[in-house]
Amino acid sequence: MKHFINPSDVKNVQELVKAGLAQKANPLSHQHLGKNKTLGLLFFNSSLRTRLSTQKAAINLGMNVMVMNVGSDGWQLEFDENVIMNGNKAEHIKEAAPVIAQYCDIIGVRSFPSLTDKKADYEEQVLESFRKYAGVPIVNLESATRHPCQSLADLITIAELKKTARPKVVLTWAPHIRALPQAVGNSFAEWLNLTDYEFVIANPEGYDLAPEYAGKAKITHNQAEAFAGADFIYAKNWSSYKHYGQILPGNEDWIVSAEKMKLTNQAKFMHCLPVRRGLIVEDAVIDSADSVVIQQAGNRVWSVQAVLKEILEGM
Amino acid sequence: MKHFINPSDVKNVQELVKAGLAQKANPLSHQHLGKNKTLGLLFFNSSLRTRLSTQKAAINLGMNVMVMNVGSDGWQLEFDENVIMNGNKAEHIKEAAPVIAQYCDIIGVRSFPSLTDKKADYEEQVLESFRKYAGVPIVNLESATRHPCQSLADLITIAELKKTARPKVVLTWAPHIRALPQAVGNSFAEWLNLTDYEFVIANPEGYDLAPEYAGKAKITHNQAEAFAGADFIYAKNWSSYKHYGQILPGNEDWIVSAEKMKLTNQAKFMHCLPVRRGLIVEDAVIDSADSVVIQQAGNRVWSVQAVLKEILEGM
Amino acid sequence: MKHFINPSDVKNVQELVKAGLAQKANPLSHQHLGKNKTLGLLFFNSSLRTRLSTQKAAINLGMNVMVMNVGSDGWQLEFDENVIMNGNKAEHIKEAAPVIAQYCDIIGVRSFPSLTDKKADYEEQVLESFRKYAGVPIVNLESATRHPCQSLADLITIAELKKTARPKVVLTWAPHIRALPQAVGNSFAEWLNLTDYEFVIANPEGYDLAPEYAGKAKITHNQAEAFAGADFIYAKNWSSYKHYGQILPGNEDWIVSAEKMKLTNQAKFMHCLPVRRGLIVEDAVIDSADSVVIQQAGNRVWSVQAVLKEILEGM
Repeated sequence: MKHFINPSDVKNVQELVKAGLAQKANPLSHQHLGKNKTLGLLFFNSSLRTRLSTQKAAINLGMNVMVMNVGSDGWQLEFDENVIMNGNKAEHIKEAAPVIAQYCDIIGVRSFPSLTDKKADYEEQVLESFRKYAGVPIVNLESATRHPCQSLADLITIAELKKTARPKVVLTWAPHIRALPQAVGNSFAEWLNLTDYEFVIANPEGYDLAPEYAGKAKITHNQAEAFAGADFIYAKNWSSYKHYGQILPGNEDWIVSAEKMKLTNQAKFMHCLPVRRGLIVEDAVIDSADSVVIQQAGNRVWSVQAVLKEILEGM
Repeated sequence: MKHFINPSDVKNVQELVKAGLAQKANPLSHQHLGKNKTLGLLFFNSSLRTRLSTQKAAINLGMNVMVMNVGSDGWQLEFDENVIMNGNKAEHIKEAAPVIAQYCDIIGVRSFPSLTDKKADYEEQVLESFRKYAGVPIVNLESATRHPCQSLADLITIAELKKTARPKVVLTWAPHIRALPQAVGNSFAEWLNLTDYEFVIANPEGYDLAPEYAGKAKITHNQAEAFAGADFIYAKNWSSYKHYGQILPGNEDWIVSAEKMKLTNQAKFMHCLPVRRGLIVEDAVIDSADSVVIQQAGNRVWSVQAVLKEILEGM
Repeated sequence: MKHFINPSDVKNVQELVKAGLAQKANPLSHQHLGKNKTLGLLFFNSSLRTRLSTQKAAINLGMNVMVMNVGSDGWQLEFDENVIMNGNKAEHIKEAAPVIAQYCDIIGVRSFPSLTDKKADYEEQVLESFRKYAGVPIVNLESATRHPCQSLADLITIAELKKTARPKVVLTWAPHIRALPQAVGNSFAEWLNLTDYEFVIANPEGYDLAPEYAGKAKITHNQAEAFAGADFIYAKNWSSYKHYGQILPGNEDWIVSAEKMKLTNQAKFMHCLPVRRGLIVEDAVIDSADSVVIQQAGNRVWSVQAVLKEILEGM
C-alpha cells in the first residue's frame, strides 16, 4: 500500500481487517518497523479520536510523530492552480506538500468538506493535492467525502462482534442541528460494500447518499423496516447530498430509540462519535450493554496501526 | 495511589514529598517504569508550567505523552446528565472520557472553574466526571477548586528551605485585576493542614476561603499581624468565595511590599506563577535573594514525577 | 556556541555550513548526543517549516521536544521592565524565561516584530530578554530582525549548488500585499556578507535594508541590472525600514518573472517560503527546473541540526 486515501488504495480489505485484529492482539509486535521514521499529522479541522489514536498507533510502531493544526499553527493554504495569491492564503499546496514531505516519511491529513462546493469536495481536492504533490505516502484522517480509518475500525468491530457469517448491518441517518459532512456515511457504505454482509441504508427522503458510495446497498426511507432483524445499527447524521450541504426540515423522529431497537435482533449500537445524545440516540440505547461505541473508538488504534504498518513495510 | 485528584487520594503526604525530593536527586532513576505507557494531557484552559513540567516528568519516567487543548483541538464537552445536546457541546463526557482512556494509560486534566456556578465548581464536576467515566488513573492539573500538583511542589520547596522543624507559613491574599479561581489558595491550605507547620491565612474581609479548605489554619484579616515572624510568605490572589467569583472593592494595599517583608523572619517569598508584578508583589521583593519562585516552579517537575511514579507502580 | 541568536554567536560560519552538510549526509550520526536532553520550542507566531524542521532535527539528535504556542497555550508575556502589570499580559519574561529553563535544556523562540516600534524591534527585545533571563542556550527561530536558521540553510543550499567558487548572489525585493518583517532579508544579507560571494541587493527606493545588515553588499534600485549574470536569485518581500513597517505605493512590477530570469546565468531561484505565487514570483519560475525552494526548505533540518549539535557539544 502506497497511500491510504480511499479503498482503491487497499489491496485486500479483509486482510487489512485481520491485520488490525493482529495488531490489537499484539500491539508492540512491530515496534521496530517505524524506528527513525516520522509521521506528520496535519489537522485542518478538529479531532479527538483520530488525533490521539493515530499518535498512539504510530508510537506502538516506534515512529516519531509531529502534530500540526495547519490553519492556526501555520498558514492558510491555497489549492487552486494558476491563481494570483492576493487573498488570505499565504502558501500554495504545491510548496506546502513537498516541504512537509522533507520532514515526514508519512503524512496524515484531516480536511473536512466546504459543503458549499460539491464539485471540489467530491473531487477530494485537498487529499488528492497532497497525493499529487507531496511525494510521500498520504493517510486520510477524514477527507471531504471519506473517513477510511473510521470505516476500517468499524469493519474490525463488526468482525469482532458478529454472531453469524453474514450479519444484517444497517446504516441509519439520525437527526442533528448542524450541517455535517457525508464522509462517515459515504465511507461506511463504501467499505461495507466490500464485504458480503447484508447491508441496508435507511434515511429520510432527500438524504440519499451519492450513488457511487451507496453502491449495492439496499436503500430505504422506512427506518422501522430497516431495523427489523438487524444485527448492527450504525447511526450517523449527514447533510443532504442532493440539496448539497443542507438540513431539510423535519425528520427529528429518526432518533435511534430503545423502542426502535426492540425491532432488531438485539443489535449492537454503533456510532463513530462524537455523538449528540438526545438527538442522534436516546441515553437508554447508548448506555445499554449493546452499545459498542467505546470498543469501536478503541479500534481506531488498530485500524490505523494496520494501515501504517502496511505502508511502512512497503517503503 | 489510583488517582491524584485531591489529598484523600494520597496515602501519605510526607512520603510523597520525600519521593519528590528523591526524583529531584535522581531524575532518571525510574526511566523504565513508564516504558510503553502513554500519558494524555487535556487542557481546557491555558497552561505553561503545568504543560511543560508534566511532559518533562513523564519523559523522565520513560512515558509517551500526547497533549491536547480540548476545546480548540477537539470538541466542546457536555458534563450534565440527561440533556438533549442541541447546543454548542458536541460530545458528552460519558463518551469522551472512556474513549480517551482507550488511548492513554493515565490522563491529566486541567479545567478551571466557571466562577458562576458555585455548586458545580465545588462538586468538581469535570474532574470527578473523568474519575467516574474514564476507567484509568486521573491526575488533577488544576481543577475548579484545587491544584494539588502545585501544592505538592510547594511542600517540596518548603521542605528544602525551612530552617526549623515547624516554620511559620503565611498564605496571603494579594490584589489582582481579574476574578481568579480559589483553587491555588484552597489547595495550598488543604495541603498545609496535612503538615504540622504553623499556618496562617491572611486575607481581606469577604475573601475567606471555604471552611473545608481553610481547615485548622489561623485566619486573620490583618496582613501585618500575619507577616510578623513568618518564615514563608506565599502570595496569591483569589476571588471571593462568599460573594462567589466576585472582586470586592478596595484592598489594593494588600500588595506584598519590601516594607511588609521586613516584618518577617527574612521569609522566603513564594508564588505559584504567573504573577502580576506591581499588583501582587513589588519588583523589589520578587527580584530579591529571598524570592524562591523559580525554584518552586522547577519543583513542579518533581512533584508530578513523584505522583506519576506512584500511579505507575500501582498499575 | 552558547546561543544561536545572531551571527556573532557563531565562531565560524563556513564550518557551520560544513557541519550542516555533514548532518545531511549522515542524519543519525549524533543520535546519542541529545539523549535525555529536552528542547522547548516557543512560538509567538505561526510557523510551518521552522516548527517541523526543528522538531525533526532534534529527533535526529535524540532529543525530546516540547512545543508550545506561547500566547494561546499559555499566557501573554510582558517584556518591559518596572511596569505595573494591570493589562492583558499575565506573566513577565523575568519569570517565564527562567521557569521554562527549568524544564528545557535548550529553548527555541520565534517572535516576529511589531513593525510599529522600530527601537524595540531592532533591539531584539524578545530574543535578548530570553538570552538575559533564561540561563540556558537560546536558538533564534526567527526574531524581529533576523532568521539565522533560514540564512544558514540558504548558505548550505548555495554551497550545494554553486558552480563557481564565487557565484553572483542577488537578493531581490518582490511585491506582497501585507507588511512583512525585514528579518529574512536582513539575515540573508548579514550571512552573505560573511562569505566572499559577489552579493547584490536589489530593491525599490524606500526599501533599503538597515545599513548594519546590508553591510558591504552592492545595493541597486535597478532590478534588471542586478539580475544580469546572476547565479542565484533570492526573492523576498519586506516592508520599508525607513518608513518603518509600511508598504510604499507601486512596485508591483518587481515580481520575479520568467522574462527577467533570462537575464541571469541560468540562476537558481530561491525563496524562504511561504511564497505568494503571482505576486512574488510567476508560476513559470517557481515551477521550473531551476527553482530550488523545496531543497532549500529541506535544508532547514540540517541547518538547525548543525546548530543544536554544536550547542549540545558545548554543554
